[in-house]
Amino acid sequence: MSEKLERFQRYLDQVEQYRQIETQMAWDMQTQTPKKGYGYKIDAITYFSGEEFRITTSEETGKMYEEMSAPEEYDALSDVMKLTVRRGKREYDRNKRIPADFYEEMVRASNISSKVWEEAKQKADYDLFCPHLQKMIDFRRRCMEYMEPEKDIYDTMLDMYEEGMDSATIDRLFSQMKEELVPLFQKIMEKPEPDNRCFTGDYDINSQKELEAYLLSYIGFDKEAGVMGESEHPFTMAFGPGDVRVTNHFSRHAAIDAMFSTIHEGGHAIFEQGINPDYVKTAAVDVGMGLHESQSRFYENILGRNINFWKPVYGKVGEILPQFQKIPLEVFFREINHVRPSFIRTAADELTYCFHIILRYEIEKAIFRDGVNAEELPRLWNDKMEELLGIRPQNAAEGILQDMHWSDGSFGYFPTYLLGTIYDGMFLEAMEKDLGSVDTLLAEGRIAEITAWLHEKIHRHGSMRTAAETLREVCGQEVTAEPIIRYFKKKYAEIYGVDA
Amino acid sequence: MSEKLERFQRYLDQVEQYRQIETQMAWDMQTQTPKKGYGYKIDAITYFSGEEFRITTSEETGKMYEEMSAPEEYDALSDVMKLTVRRGKREYDRNKRIPADFYEEMVRASNISSKVWEEAKQKADYDLFCPHLQKMIDFRRRCMEYMEPEKDIYDTMLDMYEEGMDSATIDRLFSQMKEELVPLFQKIMEKPEPDNRCFTGDYDINSQKELEAYLLSYIGFDKEAGVMGESEHPFTMAFGPGDVRVTNHFSRHAAIDAMFSTIHEGGHAIFEQGINPDYVKTAAVDVGMGLHESQSRFYENILGRNINFWKPVYGKVGEILPQFQKIPLEVFFREINHVRPSFIRTAADELTYCFHIILRYEIEKAIFRDGVNAEELPRLWNDKMEELLGIRPQNAAEGILQDMHWSDGSFGYFPTYLLGTIYDGMFLEAMEKDLGSVDTLLAEGRIAEITAWLHEKIHRHGSMRTAAETLREVCGQEVTAEPIIRYFKKKYAEIYGVDA
Repeated sequence: MSEKLERFQRYLDQVEQYRQIETQMAWDMQTQTPKKGYGYKIDAITYFSGEEFRITTSEETGKMYEEMSAPEEYDALSDVMKLTVRRGKREYDRNKRIPADFYEEMVRASNISSKVWEEAKQKADYDLFCPHLQKMIDFRRRCMEYMEPEKDIYDTMLDMYEEGMDSATIDRLFSQMKEELVPLFQKIMEKPEPDNRCFTGDYDINSQKELEAYLLSYIGFDKEAGVMGESEHPFTMAFGPGDVRVTNHFSRHAAIDAMFSTIHEGGHAIFEQGINPDYVKTAAVDVGMGLHESQSRFYENILGRNINFWKPVYGKVGEILPQFQKIPLEVFFREINHVRPSFIRTAADELTYCFHIILRYEIEKAIFRDGVNAEELPRLWNDKMEELLGIRPQNAAEGILQDMHWSDGSFGYFPTYLLGTIYDGMFLEAMEKDLGSVDTLLAEGRIAEITAWLHEKIHRHGSMRTAAETLREVCGQEVTAEPIIRYFKKKYAEIYGVDA
Repeated sequence: MSEKLERFQRYLDQVEQYRQIETQMAWDMQTQTPKKGYGYKIDAITYFSGEEFRITTSEETGKMYEEMSAPEEYDALSDVMKLTVRRGKREYDRNKRIPADFYEEMVRASNISSKVWEEAKQKADYDLFCPHLQKMIDFRRRCMEYMEPEKDIYDTMLDMYEEGMDSATIDRLFSQMKEELVPLFQKIMEKPEPDNRCFTGDYDINSQKELEAYLLSYIGFDKEAGVMGESEHPFTMAFGPGDVRVTNHFSRHAAIDAMFSTIHEGGHAIFEQGINPDYVKTAAVDVGMGLHESQSRFYENILGRNINFWKPVYGKVGEILPQFQKIPLEVFFREINHVRPSFIRTAADELTYCFHIILRYEIEKAIFRDGVNAEELPRLWNDKMEELLGIRPQNAAEGILQDMHWSDGSFGYFPTYLLGTIYDGMFLEAMEKDLGSVDTLLAEGRIAEITAWLHEKIHRHGSMRTAAETLREVCGQEVTAEPIIRYFKKKYAEIYGVDA
């Protein structure tokens, strides 16, 4: 190993240790820290992220990236190290273009904005949040201009969460989705709604946790390489393939939400646990969000909302939560595929979820392409809601204030959810070519074969391939919404008897 | 504020952040980290404790302590900062005398020794551990010689855990305890044993946790400034007065152990929560172990093993753990004061616990005063066990291998447990002078008044006073075992009808 490479690896080692403690403190803050203990964490996070920023943006680090990028060093590197140098250098160059005082101002403003958003959401008061949202829009716009002066602002944002993605591609995909799925949704709305009164009940929280543990193991989560926690909103967090943590949120009055959060976060976690452990401390562990969501949503929707998934385990569900003993599997299946218009994205069914994302994508484009101001957004939101779902929010809390993403400036993130779903349609067809019917595999309790296929084709590679490269490799084609549209039409023809 | 003081406070800030993340990682490792995730933690801990050592032992830090100790700076400081400078300088001077390579070797050896001890304990194989224990003895001896070349080695060790304590004082206290309590114990042994078969049962773990939460709140633990966790051995860990964490260990087959661990760790935690929050980032939060144990053991034994403690709460215990509904309070009380010889310190009753500590103290003296070798220790242990408790371990796991303390070189720690008990006798008498009968306070559910008294007299001061100073201040006298001996004699006269 060259002396330069050795030095670079020491640098990666060091940066990894900062990532470890930041992950550690974030995990603790979101799952355990008591009210009076937040101050200690915030002080520590501020101190160490300052130190990390100092290290990663130092002249010395820049010089190191220069050296590593020179052909005599670069050409001798492994593919993983090539990726790591390439991505690291790009990030370094981008970040170096951001003036330090601007960056600091933006970080401060986004912390304030997040706090104000929380309050505004609670009070359903958009006016409170509006000036902060406008600030975040302006900050992020300028930030992208610094980072990629030559590139379209919104494309730079999209690329940050899904490398290589752009709005031309998303326009094509989402408009086809809209065109095909809105009429499908309207046909479903003409059909009678399933009766779901039998699900009202009091579900013991400890039993729900037991069910979470059971379902996670069932789908392939390795308990020796992860733990379960609780938080306000479910999430997945990885220290590395050997320690991947999922959280859940439980309610005594509903058990199904927590079951599907379990399977969703389980999908994220199985991806993280499956990444080649040799990739630790390299860029190959930072998976793009579209591909990541494709896995959580594959488990949650493609598998979890399939009646065959439940055939081998529904008895166990009833053992753990006795209320389900009285509910036939068919009734349960109808409820987990109960299509209806609703205001809240995270509570939406599989089909209308798509519209929630399309709405947000169109608004982000309106902001960054058409210069629409924060003041105009609630009306735009409500109009689009009415256009897509036929309902109009009565207040901002069930409308534009519901998600936290924009409050800290995470524009460009939302589309990755629906991209994941689109990829899922493609993966499903590729998988069935290799393994035969997924219905049969699920019904026979052979989910391990599905996980093994996903592991081999997707998980173990981490982010060595972009989403586009993965699709080419696994599905033999460019990204297309056709398969997921076929999937939706077939599914709802069976459940609702709509002809598609 | 002088420029020098400002710089010193920035240094304290920085060191505090390292302490925060080290505490955070230790907490996670002992309560949550999955098997395959240990490696990440160990790497991070190694990296950041190396960084911290570099900072705290740098020439620059030494110069800063010199400056802060000079009269023109020192005299202007607050009492808290004076203590912080004094202790910090002493520690710096001590640590600077330890050669870096020796220190590193010792740390490595103690990590290995701890690991070997675990295995040796599992296999009950002392021969495996013996050479490592000898190494730890030799390393610690040399380390103390470096740190305090002028001072007796074992006194330096004692002083590290309880500032100002020495073996002359402990000799006096422990020999009096032995003289008075061994005959008391022998008289109790002549009395009939209580029947405890009714405690055999299957106790739901979640209910035990509910009881833990209830008891902690009852004794005054602030849930907004702490959390509860689980670990192999119960412990308390503090990020600061605003975040103090306790753990417990549960067994389906026994509920009483976890109840008393709750109260014991609760005592530690109430102390930490009660420290003046202005002391954060100063030496005034580092409380000596004798005083600390005095509080955990005050709650556990003086309060928790008093029948009156249970009068207001025993109904609730039965509500949470229905098995206790069938057990009269009097029978429960007899069982929690069931005196009997046993091999394991942590499972011993309040009286024989004293002998377990005296035994360890005498062995530590034999090692560091009389030069007894590791090879001779099991025989010495067993002889002393027979002398004090009349029983002889059948294997090393229930004898010399049971505790982890010596495996990483923590010699001098054990005596603090019994010192805490001795202080408790003194505190109890002082408290009753101020508040009247503790029996009455407990029976009337007025435990908050007891906690308020301890808070006022002890907790809020943190380590601004040594244990000796605290005793002088609170009890008006030097340390003495008389009160705790009186307490034991009175207690067992009542329970066992022995005349003392």
